[in-house]
Amino acid sequence: MSEILSSLRSLMASHSPPLDALVVPSEDYHQSEYVSARDKRREFVSGFTGSAGLALITKNEARLWTDGRYFLQATQQLSNEWTLMRMGEDPLVEAWMSDNLSEEANIGVDPWCVSVDTANRWNKSFAKKNQKLIPTTTDLVDEVWQNRPPSQTSPLAVHPLEFAGRSVPDKLEELRSKLKQESARGYVIAALDEVAWLYNIRGTDVAYCPVAHAFAIVTTDSAFLYVDKKKVSDEVSEYFKGLGVEVREYTDVISDVALLASDRLFSSFSSKSTNDMEIDSDWLWVDPAKCCYALYSKLDADKVLLQPSPLSLPKALKNPVELDGLKKAHVRDGAAVVQYLVWLDQQMQELYGASGYFLEAESNKKKPTSETAKLTELTVSDKLESLRAAKEHFRGLSFPTISSVGSNAAIIHYSPEPGACAEMDPDQIYLCDSGAQYLDGTTDITRTVHFGKPSAHEKDCYTAVFKGHVALGNARFPKGTSGYTLDILARAPLWKYGLDYRHGTGHGVGSYLFSCCWDDYAGPHQVSFRPHARNVPLQASMTVTDEPGYYEDGNFGIRLENVLVVNDAETEFNFGDKGYLQFEHITWAPYQVKLINLEQLTQEEIDWLNTYHLKCKDILAPFMNQTEMEWLMKATEPVSVLV
Amino acid sequence: MSEILSSLRSLMASHSPPLDALVVPSEDYHQSEYVSARDKRREFVSGFTGSAGLALITKNEARLWTDGRYFLQATQQLSNEWTLMRMGEDPLVEAWMSDNLSEEANIGVDPWCVSVDTANRWNKSFAKKNQKLIPTTTDLVDEVWQNRPPSQTSPLAVHPLEFAGRSVPDKLEELRSKLKQESARGYVIAALDEVAWLYNIRGTDVAYCPVAHAFAIVTTDSAFLYVDKKKVSDEVSEYFKGLGVEVREYTDVISDVALLASDRLFSSFSSKSTNDMEIDSDWLWVDPAKCCYALYSKLDADKVLLQPSPLSLPKALKNPVELDGLKKAHVRDGAAVVQYLVWLDQQMQELYGASGYFLEAESNKKKPTSETAKLTELTVSDKLESLRAAKEHFRGLSFPTISSVGSNAAIIHYSPEPGACAEMDPDQIYLCDSGAQYLDGTTDITRTVHFGKPSAHEKDCYTAVFKGHVALGNARFPKGTSGYTLDILARAPLWKYGLDYRHGTGHGVGSYLFSCCWDDYAGPHQVSFRPHARNVPLQASMTVTDEPGYYEDGNFGIRLENVLVVNDAETEFNFGDKGYLQFEHITWAPYQVKLINLEQLTQEEIDWLNTYHLKCKDILAPFMNQTEMEWLMKATEPVSVLV
Repeated sequence: MSEILSSLRSLMASHSPPLDALVVPSEDYHQSEYVSARDKRREFVSGFTGSAGLALITKNEARLWTDGRYFLQATQQLSNEWTLMRMGEDPLVEAWMSDNLSEEANIGVDPWCVSVDTANRWNKSFAKKNQKLIPTTTDLVDEVWQNRPPSQTSPLAVHPLEFAGRSVPDKLEELRSKLKQESARGYVIAALDEVAWLYNIRGTDVAYCPVAHAFAIVTTDSAFLYVDKKKVSDEVSEYFKGLGVEVREYTDVISDVALLASDRLFSSFSSKSTNDMEIDSDWLWVDPAKCCYALYSKLDADKVLLQPSPLSLPKALKNPVELDGLKKAHVRDGAAVVQYLVWLDQQMQELYGASGYFLEAESNKKKPTSETAKLTELTVSDKLESLRAAKEHFRGLSFPTISSVGSNAAIIHYSPEPGACAEMDPDQIYLCDSGAQYLDGTTDITRTVHFGKPSAHEKDCYTAVFKGHVALGNARFPKGTSGYTLDILARAPLWKYGLDYRHGTGHGVGSYLFSCCWDDYAGPHQVSFRPHARNVPLQASMTVTDEPGYYEDGNFGIRLENVLVVNDAETEFNFGDKGYLQFEHITWAPYQVKLINLEQLTQEEIDWLNTYHLKCKDILAPFMNQTEMEWLMKATEPVSVLV
Repeated sequence: MSEILSSLRSLMASHSPPLDALVVPSEDYHQSEYVSARDKRREFVSGFTGSAGLALITKNEARLWTDGRYFLQATQQLSNEWTLMRMGEDPLVEAWMSDNLSEEANIGVDPWCVSVDTANRWNKSFAKKNQKLIPTTTDLVDEVWQNRPPSQTSPLAVHPLEFAGRSVPDKLEELRSKLKQESARGYVIAALDEVAWLYNIRGTDVAYCPVAHAFAIVTTDSAFLYVDKKKVSDEVSEYFKGLGVEVREYTDVISDVALLASDRLFSSFSSKSTNDMEIDSDWLWVDPAKCCYALYSKLDADKVLLQPSPLSLPKALKNPVELDGLKKAHVRDGAAVVQYLVWLDQQMQELYGASGYFLEAESNKKKPTSETAKLTELTVSDKLESLRAAKEHFRGLSFPTISSVGSNAAIIHYSPEPGACAEMDPDQIYLCDSGAQYLDGTTDITRTVHFGKPSAHEKDCYTAVFKGHVALGNARFPKGTSGYTLDILARAPLWKYGLDYRHGTGHGVGSYLFSCCWDDYAGPHQVSFRPHARNVPLQASMTVTDEPGYYEDGNFGIRLENVLVVNDAETEFNFGDKGYLQFEHITWAPYQVKLINLEQLTQEEIDWLNTYHLKCKDILAPFMNQTEMEWLMKATEPVSVLV
C-alpha cells in the first residue's frame, strides 16, 4: 500500500469522529476549474493528472471517478490500488457511497473544496442509510502532503479602467441594487473571476487564469476583500482604501462570514448613516454552485437565498471598453496565428516535404535531417506561444494549447505532453485550439489545416463543419432566444451525413479573465444542446464562441472556432417588437480553402467566406512582414463556385 | 339581468353548500378540444362562440377568460353583463378567484368538465384563503338549459383492420405490458381518441372528430367500454364480445371506477386464471391532463399513478397499414386541392378579371354580374368540400376550413362565418388551410395563393416562409431529437428579416382521428418553441405537420403546410451509433412559383422544389381531367435560378 494512502487512512481513523471514507475533490477553495499546483490534491493522492475527477478513499478501497475524456489516461496513471469509476457507465459517486458504505458511515470531506450544491446533493443521498457528511477541520491531504508547492505570493495588480471599462463603485452600485431587489443584505463571493471582475484586480495565482486567491463579501453598506496581505502592495492598498473596500486576511473570511450571519460584520469604511439603500433584511445571497460548503455552513440556512450569482450576467455583458479591447486583442492574436501558419507551412515543406498549405497534392515525404530539427505538437505550439508573447499586452496563454496531429486531433481535450507527443506529419490533419490572455481581452481560436493532400472524406467533413460554423455565425434571432435553440444551426450540416460532435457549440469568453469550456456549466450563457443552455437568453454585448467540430476516433479531428460578439441586428422588420440580434465575428484568421468543397457551399456561404477573408487581410495587414503578407493575400483570395 | 344568469344564480344559492361562484369550462366530460353542440355549455351561458374560454359566474359578476385569438370576437359577442378577461394580460382565472372571492368561498364546477391537472391547480391556489372547489352533483348549466340539443345516438362503427392495421388484442397486450412495467393494475381512459384508437371503433358524436362519447377501463385481465348502448348494434355488440370487451352503459363508468378503486370490478370475460401478467399492485394509472376530476375523485389519491397516458406514444407511432392509408388519403386529398385551385383560378379570372394563378400581372378587376355569382370565403370552401366529398373513403372535414382573403388570412385561426365573410379578391392573397377525414387517414394542408399581382413584400415573405418549410422538411437529425430542437429550422429564414410567427411549426396527425392544433398541448410530440415540445423525441413512423407562416395584421397572411412522416434516414455515416431520422412529405399540391423569389433560393431548395413538383404531377395525374392536367403540368414545370 502506498505511503500516501496509508497515512491518509491513519488520519481518517484518528479523526474525530473516525471516518469510514474520505472524498478528495478536484476543486480548490473557490470551486475553480483550473487550480494552482498547490491545490491539486486529487492529483497528489491518486496520481491521475486529468483536469476533472474525484477520489474516494475508504478503509480498504480507493476509487477514482472521471469522465469519458480521461478513461484511457486514468487507466494508465492509476496504480493497482485504485479502481477507475467511469462516469456515464458506473454509478454516480453519491449513489455508490450510499449503496456501498455501511449504515451510519462517516464520510469526510474538506468543506472548502466542495460546493453547497454538491454537499447538499450528497447529504440527500446519505440520508437513506443515516450516513453523515463530515466536514473535516483540516484538509487531511494537506497534512500528508510533503513537499507541497508553496503558496504563491505574487502581487495583486489593479486592472486599470482603460481596460476594465467600468469603475468598482459602478459595479458595486449595480450589485447592491440587485441585493435590494431580492431583499438580501449581503452577497458572499467565492468565485475567483467574480472577485477579480468586481474589484478590477488581477493576479497570477492560477495558471492560465489571471486571478488571485481571494474571497469577497459585499453588503448594502460595506465591501470586503479577503486575500493574503503579502500580495497587496502599498499602492494597491491605497487603491482599495480609495474604493472603501476593506482588505482583510484570506483566512479571516470564515470568521467574518460568521459575523455577517449575525449582522455584526462592520467595515471601517461603512457608510451606513448616509446610505439610502439600507434595507431591513435578514437574507444573505449565496450562489450554491460557486460557494464552498465551509462558508455556507456558517450561515443560518433558513436565511440564505440560494440563487445564481448576481454578478454572472453583469460580467457576461461586456461594456464598450471591454468590447473594444476584446476586438483589438483578437486582431493581435489573429496576427500571431497567421504568422504561426506561415512559419509552419514553410517548416512543413522544408523539413517534411509537404506540398504546403495551398497545394492540394501528395507530399514528397521526408524526415528532418537531425533529431533537434524535428517538429512535435509541443515544439510547434511553443513557437505559437512565442509569436503571441511578442504582441502588445500579452500576459500568458488562456488555456493549455491543444496542438494535435492526426488521430490526436480526435481527442477533443487533447493536451500534448513532453516526451509523449506526436511528431508533425505532412499527410495528416493538424488541429490547433489556442488562446491567450492580453490585458485588453482573452482570446480563443481553433483552425484545422492540412499541409499535404487531404482525403475526400476529410474535405467532406471539413466542409460540413465549416457550413455549421458559418450558419451559427450568420444567425439572426429574436431577443429572448437561448443558445440551446441556436445549437442545431451548427449541427444540421453534419447531421445530413450522419455526423455530429459530442460537445457544446459555444461558451462565453472573458475580458482578461477566463475562456470557459463547453463542458463548464458555470457560464451564464452557452450555445449547447445541454439543458443548462436554455436558462439564459443571449443578449447584446455578450461574447460566445462558435466552434463546431467532427472527431473520428483513431483517424482525425476537425474544429473551427471564432469568438462572436452578440449585437443588435438592424432587421428590415421587427415582428412582435421583440428586437433581433446577430453575431459579429471578432476572430481573424483564414480558413484553409483547400479543405473546402466549394461546390457544396451556397452562394451566401461563398459570399460570407470572401467577405470574411477580405476583412482578415485588411485587418491583419499592419502586422505582417512581406512574406507573411504574400501568404495572407493568397490565403484570402476570393473564391467562386463556378471555377 | 339575463334569465340564464339569474336562473344559475338561484341554483347556486340553493346548492348545498351554497356556491359563491360557478366555473363553466369549455370542455366536455372527456376534456375534448372540439365538443358536440350539446356540450357547448360555456357558449350557452356566455353567448361567446369561440373554441377556447372559461366562464365564471359569481353572485354579482360574470367574467369570461379567453386568449388573444378571440379578444375581438368576445367583445362583440358578450353582453354588458359580462367582463372579458384577456389571457396573457389579465390575471389567470385561479389567481383572480383566489384574490377576489372571499375567504372560505365555495367555488362550484361540474367535476366531469374539469381535468385532474386543472382541479389540482385550482385547489392549490384556493388553499391560501381556505376557499373550496365544490364539485356540483349535477351540471347546473344543464338544469337551466332549455332546448339543449339532444344526445347523439348515431351508431358506433367498427374501424376495420384493413385501415386500423393493428388488432385490439395486440393493442391491449401492449397496454397491459406497460401497466405491468409501471406496476399498475388498471388504466382509466377518458380521452375520446384513445378509446376509439384502442378498440378500433369510430363514431360521429363530435363534428370533425370521428369519435363516440365513451369511456374505457382496462385492467390486467379485463377491458370495459362505457357508451350509450343505443349506439351499439347487434353486430358491434358481437364484435366486442369476440374481443372480450365488456360493454356497459355510459353512465356506469362512475360506479365502476369506484369498484375498480376497491379492486371489486369484474368482467364476465375476465381471464384471471389463465393470465400470466397478473400483478400484485394497488396502483391505478390516470393521465391527469386527459381524465376528468369526477372519475379521479372516486379513486384513492395515494394509489393513483398520475402520468401521461400509456396510449399516446403507441397511437402516435403509425403502423404500416396506417402509414399506407395516410399516404393514399393524402394523394386523393391533394387531387381535390389541385382540382379546387384549377376551378378557383378559372373563376377568379372569369368573374373577377384576375390575371390568374400563373401570370404575375395586375388584374383587370371587375365584379361578378350577379349577386348569386359572387364568390366568398365560404362559398369557395364549400366547393373544396364538395371536391373532397367525391373522393373515396371521404367521411367529412377534419376541422372547419380556414378560407381567408387578405387581412383575414392574418387571423391565424380564422373561420369564415355566413353573412360576415369576405368576398374573393384578385388583388389579395388567399390562404386556405383545410383537411378531411377519410377512412384510411386524416389530412391537413395549407396553400397560399395570389391570382393577381402580389407585392414585392408579399413575395419576400412567401419566399422566407417557403425556405423555412423546406428547411424543416429536409432536416436530418439523430434519434432522440425533439421537435423543440428542430423548430428553429423553419423560423431562421424569417428571422433574417426580423419576421416570425406566433404559433408552433408542427403537430401530429391521426389515422382517421384528430388533426391536432399547434396550440394543443395534448399531442405527445410537436415541432414548437413551446417547452412542451421538448418532452417527446420524434420517432420513426410518427406524423407531423410542417407549417411555418407569416401574418401581417390588417394586411395578409401566409402559411404553407404539408404532412410529414418521420422515417429512418440512410445516412452515409452513423456517428455515435444513434441512428438518424428524416422526413417524407406525404402531402401533394404545388407551391405557387409566382410567389417565390427564385433567385433567393439555394440550388438545394430549387432542386427540392423541382423534385417535389415532378412527384406531384406524377402522383396526382390519375385523378386529373385534361384541363386539370394541363394546369398541373404548368404549375409543376421545373424552375431554375439562371433564367
